[in-house]
Amino acid sequence: MTDYSDSPRREAPVDLASVFLGPKAENADVFERLLLEAVRDHVFWRRNFHPEDGFEVTEAEKRTPAYERSITTLAQELMGLLGELKAGVPFFSPRYIGHMSSDLTMASLVGYFATMLYNPNNVAAEASPVTTRMELEVAGQLARMIGYDPARQWGHLTSGGTVANFEALWVARNVKYLPVAVRWAADELGLAGIGVRLPGGEGADLRAMDLWQLLNVAPEASLDLLEHFRDRVGDGMAAANAVTRHSLAGLGYQEFGRRLATQFGDAFPPAAVLVPSTAHYSWEKICRALGIGGAQLVHVPVDARFRMDPDALRSTLGTLAGRRQPVIACVSVIGTTEESAVDRLDLVAEVRDEAARRHGIAFHLHADAAWGGYAASITRGADGERRSYERALADYAPEPWPQEGVYRALVALERTDSVTIDPHKLGFIPYPAGAVSFRDLRVRDLVAVEAPYVFHAGGSDASYIGRFIFEGSKPGAAAAAVWMSHKVLPPDARGYGRLVGETARGALLLHRRIAAGDWAPFRLVALPEPDLNIVCFAIGHPSLVSLEETNALADRVYGAMSVSAGRSARDLEYVVTKTVLRAHEYGRAAEPVVRELGFTYDDYERAGGVGVIRCTVMDPFFAARRGKEDFVAGFAKALRKVLEQVL
Amino acid sequence: MTDYSDSPRREAPVDLASVFLGPKAENADVFERLLLEAVRDHVFWRRNFHPEDGFEVTEAEKRTPAYERSITTLAQELMGLLGELKAGVPFFSPRYIGHMSSDLTMASLVGYFATMLYNPNNVAAEASPVTTRMELEVAGQLARMIGYDPARQWGHLTSGGTVANFEALWVARNVKYLPVAVRWAADELGLAGIGVRLPGGEGADLRAMDLWQLLNVAPEASLDLLEHFRDRVGDGMAAANAVTRHSLAGLGYQEFGRRLATQFGDAFPPAAVLVPSTAHYSWEKICRALGIGGAQLVHVPVDARFRMDPDALRSTLGTLAGRRQPVIACVSVIGTTEESAVDRLDLVAEVRDEAARRHGIAFHLHADAAWGGYAASITRGADGERRSYERALADYAPEPWPQEGVYRALVALERTDSVTIDPHKLGFIPYPAGAVSFRDLRVRDLVAVEAPYVFHAGGSDASYIGRFIFEGSKPGAAAAAVWMSHKVLPPDARGYGRLVGETARGALLLHRRIAAGDWAPFRLVALPEPDLNIVCFAIGHPSLVSLEETNALADRVYGAMSVSAGRSARDLEYVVTKTVLRAHEYGRAAEPVVRELGFTYDDYERAGGVGVIRCTVMDPFFAARRGKEDFVAGFAKALRKVLEQVL
Repeated sequence: MTDYSDSPRREAPVDLASVFLGPKAENADVFERLLLEAVRDHVFWRRNFHPEDGFEVTEAEKRTPAYERSITTLAQELMGLLGELKAGVPFFSPRYIGHMSSDLTMASLVGYFATMLYNPNNVAAEASPVTTRMELEVAGQLARMIGYDPARQWGHLTSGGTVANFEALWVARNVKYLPVAVRWAADELGLAGIGVRLPGGEGADLRAMDLWQLLNVAPEASLDLLEHFRDRVGDGMAAANAVTRHSLAGLGYQEFGRRLATQFGDAFPPAAVLVPSTAHYSWEKICRALGIGGAQLVHVPVDARFRMDPDALRSTLGTLAGRRQPVIACVSVIGTTEESAVDRLDLVAEVRDEAARRHGIAFHLHADAAWGGYAASITRGADGERRSYERALADYAPEPWPQEGVYRALVALERTDSVTIDPHKLGFIPYPAGAVSFRDLRVRDLVAVEAPYVFHAGGSDASYIGRFIFEGSKPGAAAAAVWMSHKVLPPDARGYGRLVGETARGALLLHRRIAAGDWAPFRLVALPEPDLNIVCFAIGHPSLVSLEETNALADRVYGAMSVSAGRSARDLEYVVTKTVLRAHEYGRAAEPVVRELGFTYDDYERAGGVGVIRCTVMDPFFAARRGKEDFVAGFAKALRKVLEQVL
Repeated sequence: MTDYSDSPRREAPVDLASVFLGPKAENADVFERLLLEAVRDHVFWRRNFHPEDGFEVTEAEKRTPAYERSITTLAQELMGLLGELKAGVPFFSPRYIGHMSSDLTMASLVGYFATMLYNPNNVAAEASPVTTRMELEVAGQLARMIGYDPARQWGHLTSGGTVANFEALWVARNVKYLPVAVRWAADELGLAGIGVRLPGGEGADLRAMDLWQLLNVAPEASLDLLEHFRDRVGDGMAAANAVTRHSLAGLGYQEFGRRLATQFGDAFPPAAVLVPSTAHYSWEKICRALGIGGAQLVHVPVDARFRMDPDALRSTLGTLAGRRQPVIACVSVIGTTEESAVDRLDLVAEVRDEAARRHGIAFHLHADAAWGGYAASITRGADGERRSYERALADYAPEPWPQEGVYRALVALERTDSVTIDPHKLGFIPYPAGAVSFRDLRVRDLVAVEAPYVFHAGGSDASYIGRFIFEGSKPGAAAAAVWMSHKVLPPDARGYGRLVGETARGALLLHRRIAAGDWAPFRLVALPEPDLNIVCFAIGHPSLVSLEETNALADRVYGAMSVSAGRSARDLEYVVTKTVLRAHEYGRAAEPVVRELGFTYDDYERAGGVGVIRCTVMDPFFAARRGKEDFVAGFAKALRKVLEQVL
């Protein structure tokens, strides 16, 4: 295919007016034309495949009552569906600033639909020769965007962020216990003299290491060890089978634990997973499912900007090392679901390196960038090279976005072991399109299981996606949707960088309007300026003397500005959502907000949390002042009206 | 919506000619009309939402070079995509009898597309008021089809069979260890006198039970226990938290195991999961991920029809009970991926009941009906009542389908604790649409985790799907697709029963043609008549003196009848796939095939397996003799030609 990015205009940003169907379906003509093209093209492909077969459905049959009855049902039910869908939520409108939903790129919609007609299944290339290639291609694009070595990375699409995060932690768990498995496998095969690199940089003999050392081999060193072991065995399959016989995945926790106890007198506490205290609730689900245990999630406090506090991380790691509690992984969040806060991943990575030196501990570093991953596109030029902070900043002038810390965090994605990025979030792609990237493709070997009927000898690794991932059957259409969208909107400063920047600009303007407004007699307390594009604010009123009553006011505002039973979207001016900054998760991080509302930390703990209105700005037109409505001003006006009504 | 199933013709089967776009896109006119209707309806919905806002993209802007450049890229890349997709696989044709892929129902395609424009996210009803309801509705339809009590069941859609099976086993694991957790929670709270029903039917005092008894409480009794405990505590949240503090999910395997050892001196072997030896490879992946361990999968031998052998299951359970190895779950397969074999689930359920009486053991019974689940529709009349075997048989006369054992197995789905059914397989729905059903909705409480921003007080349980399932964001479009398809093709004898029956008829005719043909000098050895719709056969030739050479011949035949690099689908007459009946999985079950090929069991073990050509018949037109081509005869002819070429 012709790569239009090589045109002379390659440095020019993409015109965002052309990317979406549009709030008023302004691009309906193009959209309809392309859809029809896709349908007809497909129709005639069918017709040209063995035309000598004739037709299975004749025109005469179409005039029978049975046929007509069935088609009538179809048409009538579709009309019913279309009617019902209008009871849905107008995600396409700049007036919708609620959940993480928005209009989608036309490229992804058309690509998804065109491909769905072919129904490829990306479990294996044999059922999806085209879209499996596309999936690996877009995974490579995402890996390049974050800064992984394209030749060494491994990534693929998933049904969503939960499965992507699950797979990353599954891999981290398997890598964590790999040195123990290799040790036992080497014992079984009588192999001696296998060297391992310790976190401090020095080498050790595998058979001489104690359990604490075995559980603190850095991920890359563990994978090197596996490779070294395989070389020593001389037969890849035999080596893999030997490791499986002794691995946690193979034996299960019960048997693996029994052996640890027998052979090492394991006295270590259960292995921990570190997350910022504001991490998505799915992390608990994931730890429960993997058998790690929800209780082994260690919540690292966040600072007043809701970013994982590097000092708290440092001291947490010191404590864990002190009581010899192994760490499977540390999860850093790039774009929290509630505030779009971006952890200072650069500082987190520093703390990890320091912990390796000081305490000899090692663990997997994962970035949950399900929400914010696409923001890394602002750090890439059309040539794929990193752009300086100054250049990134210049793109969004006069808005002071991104903050330098956010920029550094995005650049630091390259220092992680794995990253989750959801194209179905800030990629503006239809569900289901999550993605996970691993720095080191060798992790695939820790996941691989064989399926006899899907995988045939002779195929390349690339055709066997299903071997190396958690899920099986999955829509090739999702891969085509991402692929098409990346073609039109490249994951660099011209494309997604521009789009994500526009959403951030909208959020900053909204934040400023909230913070600067005179809301008397109400008091609107905005959370700090967002790192990306989610604005939250609390609402106080002098007549409300308890935080509980104040929270109830937020509930009423939310109720008046959201789709609910008995009220259609049509009747809404603007749509928001709300969340609760819970005391046991946010701790002191929410204290400034609580104090500004006029309450104490004790009030906060007693109430259990503080409710805030949450506005996710995804629509690039929100602050663009293109049409007749100034949405920032309009929102402020609508909010004022609601405030007066609900008190 | 009007329910057309109430029309006077409600008993009449649906005209299958009207259901698909068709091998020659015979229904293109209807399809295009409905798609356009969906697009335009959506376009004008957008335009009517706050029309006073004006337009964000003006006609003048559409004439700017930047806009035109971007649209040109989009159009050009779409043309490129359409071109590439034609290198894909013609799943829509009756000539494609390879993998489990086929044409899709028009209802599901149109429903998916129409809904995708609205982009609902079924994680919570707030982001999908319409499609969350549809998801629960179709889950209820599937539950009714298999025979669960509609008022007590719980089910939902998943990204596919792997996640559905994973979730079922996750639940089974949590339920298995629940009595231990409740025991510890009761100890903590000082609650005595809590009764538990043992598998034999007698009652016991929770605090007096030994570990073996605690690990052998039947699933329903475990959930009763939880409910009883909750009543005793008197505060649902406090009870749930107390259980979580002591549960495997909460503590993780390491800490939970440590406590078992400390408090019960746990000397039991690791808990096992039973599967037929032919179970899908994803079960190993699932056991590895859940921490159960791949090695704890116990493969129960299958009989010569590739169904789990009930006698083998009985003796396996006896052995496990004898060495006091707890069983988490037994998985029975309704439609194996390779042969479409249907386990005699009725007999499996009998063996389970017998084991409870004889050995006092209890476990979760799961049916992996990802492939064959929709076949249960043949057991349901338009009124939802069970139809007799004689009536089901009469529908497909003169074909003797289904076998009575298959019918009984399908009816026995109601005796399981959970079932996986993939609408994206025999539901003819686009990916991603898996589904899992649980007999007892109380299992949700063992999965629930709270997400602060998604779930607000006051909503009903039904609006909180994301709380109770593994995945998070997921396409509401998939729910609409299944919902639409069920409207046109109800999951009973008139609709899906008719469709699945047609695929089985095609497979039986193909099987008969293979078995009856004179292929000399080749010898075609068909596997036994399929239970559903997959036909496999091995190919021998007198000149091939080893099984290895014989397997190589199958490889070559497969190579000549499949899409591969350098050969486009256009050049193929018919498309098949192949699989290997591996000796370590199939054991004696494959011996008849091996012997008929002229080899011994020793040859089989040495070769590691026997390769067979695998034909999945999904197209209802395959044996319908509607058009000019007789596909059964045509396939035989094409195969003959290939055989002569490849030797």
